[in-house]
This record gives sequence, C-alpha cells and structure tokens, in this order.
Amino acid sequence: MKDVIYFDNNATTRIAPEVLEEMLPYFCEKYGNASSMHTFGGSNKRAIEKARANVASLINADPQEVIFTSGGTESDSTAIYSSINSYPNKKHIITSAVEHPAVLEVFKKLASQGYKVDFIGVDTNGRFDMESFKKLIDDNTALVSVMWANSETGTIFPVKEIAKIAHARGALFHTDGVQALGKIITDVKETDVDLMSFSSHKINGPKGMGGLYIKTGTRFLPFMVGGHQERLRRAGTENVPSIVGFGKAALLAKEHLKDTGKIAALRDALEQGLTSSIENTKVNGDTQNRLPNTANISFGYIEGESILMMLDEYGICASSGSACTSGSLEPSHVLRAMQVPFQFAHGSIRFSLSRYNTIEEVNKVLEVMPKIVSRLRALSPFNPSTFSAVK
Amino acid sequence: MKDVIYFDNNATTRIAPEVLEEMLPYFCEKYGNASSMHTFGGSNKRAIEKARANVASLINADPQEVIFTSGGTESDSTAIYSSINSYPNKKHIITSAVEHPAVLEVFKKLASQGYKVDFIGVDTNGRFDMESFKKLIDDNTALVSVMWANSETGTIFPVKEIAKIAHARGALFHTDGVQALGKIITDVKETDVDLMSFSSHKINGPKGMGGLYIKTGTRFLPFMVGGHQERLRRAGTENVPSIVGFGKAALLAKEHLKDTGKIAALRDALEQGLTSSIENTKVNGDTQNRLPNTANISFGYIEGESILMMLDEYGICASSGSACTSGSLEPSHVLRAMQVPFQFAHGSIRFSLSRYNTIEEVNKVLEVMPKIVSRLRALSPFNPSTFSAVK
Repeated sequence: MKDVIYFDNNATTRIAPEVLEEMLPYFCEKYGNASSMHTFGGSNKRAIEKARANVASLINADPQEVIFTSGGTESDSTAIYSSINSYPNKKHIITSAVEHPAVLEVFKKLASQGYKVDFIGVDTNGRFDMESFKKLIDDNTALVSVMWANSETGTIFPVKEIAKIAHARGALFHTDGVQALGKIITDVKETDVDLMSFSSHKINGPKGMGGLYIKTGTRFLPFMVGGHQERLRRAGTENVPSIVGFGKAALLAKEHLKDTGKIAALRDALEQGLTSSIENTKVNGDTQNRLPNTANISFGYIEGESILMMLDEYGICASSGSACTSGSLEPSHVLRAMQVPFQFAHGSIRFSLSRYNTIEEVNKVLEVMPKIVSRLRALSPFNPSTFSAVK
Repeated sequence: MKDVIYFDNNATTRIAPEVLEEMLPYFCEKYGNASSMHTFGGSNKRAIEKARANVASLINADPQEVIFTSGGTESDSTAIYSSINSYPNKKHIITSAVEHPAVLEVFKKLASQGYKVDFIGVDTNGRFDMESFKKLIDDNTALVSVMWANSETGTIFPVKEIAKIAHARGALFHTDGVQALGKIITDVKETDVDLMSFSSHKINGPKGMGGLYIKTGTRFLPFMVGGHQERLRRAGTENVPSIVGFGKAALLAKEHLKDTGKIAALRDALEQGLTSSIENTKVNGDTQNRLPNTANISFGYIEGESILMMLDEYGICASSGSACTSGSLEPSHVLRAMQVPFQFAHGSIRFSLSRYNTIEEVNKVLEVMPKIVSRLRALSPFNPSTFSAVK
C-alpha cells in the first residue's frame, strides 16, 4: 500500500501503537472470560476496571458511571431507548437536525411509533437554534439529545446550556460525544449531562468498542439484555482486548489534549492555504467554536466525490459528509440544514486531522488541490461563468 | 501467569495465532473506514466480503445472508425483535426453558410487555419436549427460538424438526447457534432455519464479534439503526479487524470439523475417568446427542464453586453453569429444568474442550479431581452418610 496522507480522522483513526501493544496479551494469552470463576478469566476484570477508570477520567466521570458498548451507534440507541422507556408517560423528544444518523434514525423511527419529535435547526454557521429549542421543550419532553460537536463541520454545541434548559423542564439530556471526545475537554460534571455516548475508534482505539456515561442516579434500562455483565447494564461477554485498548487510547487522548493547539495550527494552515489560493470557496461551520481538527470547505460548482477521487490518486484521504452515509447521492443533511447553497454543498470536503498529521502533509494538499479544482471546474456545467445562466 | 489447563472453551476460547496474524494489519496500517470513498478505507470492504464468505461457508449460507454484529447477545436480540416486529399482529412466542440468558431475558421482557410466552421444558436428559411444543404452537405464534446446542450440557436439539413444525404454523424459526458453531456441522439449508445467531469468540476468533444468518426472503428489521452499513441491516462502523479475524476463525473451524472425533475422544476419556474413579457422580445431558467437546458432570453432595476454586489452585479452568450468570448462587437454570436433584445440581462442573487440549491435560484433571472431591466431601454437611438423615 502506498504512503497515505490521512485527513479523515473523523471517520476513523489508526490504532496508536501503544494501544495495540496493550491489547496484544489479551488475544492469545490472557484470553479468559472476565465473568468466569477461575483466576485465569476473572483476573481480566481488573484490566477492565483499569480501562474504565481511564475512560472515566477523560470525561471527568466516576468509573461506575461508564459502561462499555460495541460503539457509538449502540451507545446512542442505549441512551435514547433507556430514557424514553424510563419515562413512558412522556411522549415528546427533541434532537437537532444535524445529528449523526445513529441518533437521527432512532428519532425518525420513534416518530413513526407515535412520539412527537422536534428536530431543532441550525443557522447558516451551523449554530444550534436555542430560541426554537426553548419554545418547543415542555413538561412532556422525556429526552433532549444534542451532539457535543458536529462530525462534519466540527461545530461545538452549547451542551451545558442545553442540559440546563432540559433539566428545568424535567427532561433528560443525552449528548452524542463521539466527535468531541479527545478533541476538546468534555467534562460531564461541569456540563451536567445525564448521558454521553462515545466511541473508541475515533480516538486511536479499536473499532467495535464504545462507551456510555450514565450519571449516577439517572434512571436506566439496558438495551442489550442477557448476561449479568456491566452490572446488568450491558449484556454480552466483555470484549477484554478492545476494552483494554480503549482505556489506553483514553489515557493517551487525555495526555494529548494539551497538544490540540498544534493540530489546530495545522488545520488553520490547511484551511487558510486552500481558501486563499482557490476562488469560490466557503468554510462551513462555526469557526469561532469548532473542533480543533476539523475543516469543512466547499469548493463551489464542482462535485465533492470527484474531488475525493482525484485526491485519492495522490493517496490523500478526506471525505464528503460522513462515512456512515456514503453511497448516498444527496448532499449532506448537515449542510442542507445550514442552507449551504447547493452549488457549494455538493462540493464540500471535510478534512479531519489527528496528532499524527504533519505540515508536510498539509503542504502536499495545498500543492495538489488547486490543480484538482481547476481541472474539475473546467469540466463543470456549473462553473461560475455558466452558472447564472443555469439558475 | 502460570501454565493454564483450559477446559472452559464454551465460555470463551483463545484466539488462534493464525487469526491474530490475519487481524494485525488492520489495526495500525489498513485502518481506514470501510464505508469511506477513498481507496484506503474502501478497499477494506473486500476484506470484509472475504470474511463474510468464509463465515457463510461454515454454515452453508450464501454470503449475503450473513450480517456481522457485536456478538451472540446482539444477534439474539436482533433476531427476536426483527421477527416479532415483522409480524406485529401475532402475539405468541415460544422458546425453551434452557436457553442462554441472551434469549431467555428478552423473552421474559416481552412477556412483561404483553406477549404470550411459552418456555418448553426438557426431560431429565435435557431433551426438548417436542410433544408440548406441538401442542402449544398455533397460528398466532410469531417466532420459535430454540438453541442448536445447549451451552451447559452440550445437548443438541432437533432444530430441523422444530423448524419444520414452526413453518407449518407460519412461524419463523430462530436458533441460537453460538455453542454449536464449529463443533458440529451447522447447515442452515439442510435444517431450513430462518435465523441463526453465532459468535466469533467461541471458535477461536476475537471477542466482541458475532453474526446473524438471515435466510433470503425472511422479513427483517434492523436492531441497530443509524448508518448504511451491512446493507442497512446493522448500523455502526464496520469492525474490520474483528470481522477479518472471525472470517479466518470460521475457515479454520471448517477445516477442523473433521477433527472433532479427537476432541470427543479426549472428552470421553475425561468423563469416563472421572465417573469411574469417583463415587456419586452423574453425567448431565443427552449423551447420545451431544457436542463432542462438552462434559457436564455432577459430583454429588458438594459445591461446584468450591470444586472450581480448588481446580483453580492447580491452574485448571472449568465452570459451573455459564459465565454469563456467574455470581448467582442459584444452581443453573438448565440443570433445574432437567430436574437434577439439588444435591447433584449444586456440584456440577462443565468441562469444555477445544482442539488445543491434550491427553496430558486430561490426565492431570483425572489425577487431582478425586483428591479434591474427597477433601470437599469430608467437609460437606450433605455427604452421603448424613444425607438421608437430613432429608
């Protein structure tokens, strides 16, 4: 495989070598079932609890407030179903229009099952419409679920303020923290969220592993039932190697939180370089309040998928929208909610960085991207000179 | 860690070294998101499809009939909820009294939500009560879920016959095949099951990975919703390393199916050695129709947990009941359903073998077990000489 320049870290990340090293003994040597009576299996419980403490520490939770799941999607479903089933008499739920599909699709399903569902919009900078939210929440609201940061634009939502308003009306507040974890400080005590979903593979941990924070005292009903694992909150044989890996990844992420300024500097160099050297570009999202690693840039009048294919020829990985919806020909639901004009929305590229990226990689993108855009615009039926006629 | 003699392979297994080798490149090198547009991620789709073909081949399914999940528990929930929600007008469901908790607990939950649930019993040899089943199934039955083989005794159930009866009444048939997979031939076409759950970590693959067979044409609704993965049948970022590992484990399991006679010979040597050298023992389960690797033996008048602790001192791993319910002081629900007398049920030990076990390990158990039993019986208030008085 040729050298890859990887700017798609909001889709997934490489496992940190230190994480893999920590996982390895649990595959072929310490492979016992952590719920077994014998020392060989049972001693893995200690490894799990150490990992739990590390994950909890990253979000300032108490360890017993964290359960391990198979990933962000399961955590989201667990949080949502637990909340509504714990308050069966309340039939109103609120989310935002720009959530990840793991939240949006569950809310749509619940809408079809009789729940009143409000999808709060965002402004053209991707900012949560707090005024609508305040008007729509009422005493019948069981749950408010709003992501901590948007996966496509990196826009950070005011979760502390949203949680406070939710609590004032007796609603639970869940946040999908998958993209925020490890990129900014996510302090569950300071923000007073009730439930927070997160995922290991977005912070250089293994895939197929995630977690859910459940504030002490929050009513909770399990989504995955069966065995007694996770103190009856999540059934299924403990995935020891991946739990251990997630714990190590969380420890590293906490250490590296101090380095996010470096990542932001690279991101800014990339963004400023691209927008200054290429005409008709537009940065999407709230640039004042944004994840340090994410740049979402529209290149007007051309197709994002064509850009990605040409970047791919240079070994550069980026994305248009989220990987979870790729294959769809629609422009991203996030950019549509932001009312990005379609001639810009279609040509949007998300560059998402990690601590492994370098200035050399940024410079490589700055070198090739103007050529790619020129070439595609020359072919485009929507290039600026013809566009006004088309409209 | 001292050398371990591992006779607890129905709880979990070591990852085969060949499996780990196959997984390793997908952690730190080929770590892309399989749903990404770029070659780096997208090429992982091929690795997933290769694994799917190997898993499908082990059960004689077509590859598109197999989806990957986070494990047996998720597969069971997926199968059960899909079936009942696909036939919302039918309000009767049937299972056996000796299922794994991942099935039993879901059925109990559904009973509390208004479903009529029948739990079919077993005879003293653990055999499914076919006559009761035939009487209880009717045209209102949405789903019959009966395991292929019992995790505690290894008893194999007549899934082909049960499926046929279910189908004659218009019900779907799901089987929890977690314990049967790789130990006996599990041919979904020959048996005509509609849905079959299975797990990777029981066949020397990674934990946190499982699958569900869904016969072509079966109505299906996803349990985990969100992204477009698995052709909209299971949302969540594909766990590429574990999928690849499961594929390799399935390939190896298929090759090793021819060796199950060797495992059965070791198991028989263990069982015959123990029952001939120790008084007041009883083999639980249908010895005519049993997984080749499983021996469940009751040592009368003593506690299984005490036996396990003493075995543990010799580095020997076995279990009483399933790991998923350990911590409970009740004797196993399986042995209770078989009406094993309590003075035997409490002292039951499951030895479950794998292709990695040796005759030397069997001989070590045969050497230490009589001493352990004698010592415990000398301390027991229920030893045979006092028992009749106690009763």
